[in-house]
Amino acid sequence: MFTFALPKGSLLKDSIRLLQGVGLDFSGFLDPTNRQLQILDPTGTARALLVRAQDVPVYVEYGQAQAGIVGEDVLREKTPKVAKLLDLGFGGCRMSIAVSGESRYRSPLDLPPHSRIASKYVGCAREYFDSIDLPVEIIPLYGSVELGPITGMAEAIVDLVSTGKTLKDNGLIEIEVLYHSTARLIAHPLSYRLYSDRFSELMEKMQIKA
Amino acid sequence: MFTFALPKGSLLKDSIRLLQGVGLDFSGFLDPTNRQLQILDPTGTARALLVRAQDVPVYVEYGQAQAGIVGEDVLREKTPKVAKLLDLGFGGCRMSIAVSGESRYRSPLDLPPHSRIASKYVGCAREYFDSIDLPVEIIPLYGSVELGPITGMAEAIVDLVSTGKTLKDNGLIEIEVLYHSTARLIAHPLSYRLYSDRFSELMEKMQIKA
Repeated sequence: MFTFALPKGSLLKDSIRLLQGVGLDFSGFLDPTNRQLQILDPTGTARALLVRAQDVPVYVEYGQAQAGIVGEDVLREKTPKVAKLLDLGFGGCRMSIAVSGESRYRSPLDLPPHSRIASKYVGCAREYFDSIDLPVEIIPLYGSVELGPITGMAEAIVDLVSTGKTLKDNGLIEIEVLYHSTARLIAHPLSYRLYSDRFSELMEKMQIKA
Repeated sequence: MFTFALPKGSLLKDSIRLLQGVGLDFSGFLDPTNRQLQILDPTGTARALLVRAQDVPVYVEYGQAQAGIVGEDVLREKTPKVAKLLDLGFGGCRMSIAVSGESRYRSPLDLPPHSRIASKYVGCAREYFDSIDLPVEIIPLYGSVELGPITGMAEAIVDLVSTGKTLKDNGLIEIEVLYHSTARLIAHPLSYRLYSDRFSELMEKMQIKA
């Protein structure tokens, strides 16, 4: 049985649409009354697990799912041991540095040493500020990172931006884009080698549909 | 201005009720249409920030909030530098080890060395298994930890249990309780010393209402 790990949240709808395009129907996950975390495709040939986006690479790395769909942002942050197969094109967003519009910072180079940077992406934030040799204090947050600069706890944030509405609503401005992120098809390395024909077929169909 | 950090989720309602009992009204956060992350009490004497439970100690540690309400489970996992003032009594739950009901494990001592343990509470899980000198592999997950044993990825989970319904629905059984958790009042250490009279008054009122 081929198992896909699918991410809850913003990538779910497009992920299910993509899999429908290759003949696998997991649309039951889109039913608001659904409480199941795993469902079978009606043809009985594949299964899907519905997990948090950050958990998708975990299920794939441990081989509980042979394939998964997840944002590049999660892969960069967690660096899991998975095969990255395809850029699926959807779910486009960017990892950005943002500051309060009222601050005088207009570039990361304006930030003073030992600035406080709030982020859910601690690894990515650390890597970037190391790369410009600026010592900063990273404050790990789990949500509503925009409160960091608003409350005066942090000079800047490193966060994922899609439309930019949240930043705007909170009076924040982007001063740097670290990278662009889209949804990726990933695979358990051993499964990818074992079922190379099946993966080739899947990827070919996905590339036509994507 | 005195600022409280309040946790989104299961402790919010009781936290707001408790603060209403001491004359501070932040019930605006309970309005389902509310999108504000900070509100003022109508008397204008205090402010509240609405943040993720795991972020409450961060805002208090950095002094952006003078006080906060958060579960003991978060304090044990993150060990933030905050003053723990009161056990508020509500939000009772327990940190437990659970396994599939179909497994033969009925005690943590039955788990074989190098078992895989899925958990959102990596620090707590690590500490417990170190304490019984059992080498295990901790698999960090962000949500739906119960999928760990169901998919065969993990022998056991370490997770917060309140009613036990999620475990039961997923065929899991508790084999050990690590500790019991309730909501706590925490304070920024410096603020606690600076505003000791205000904190004493607050705690006295809370103890009567709790």
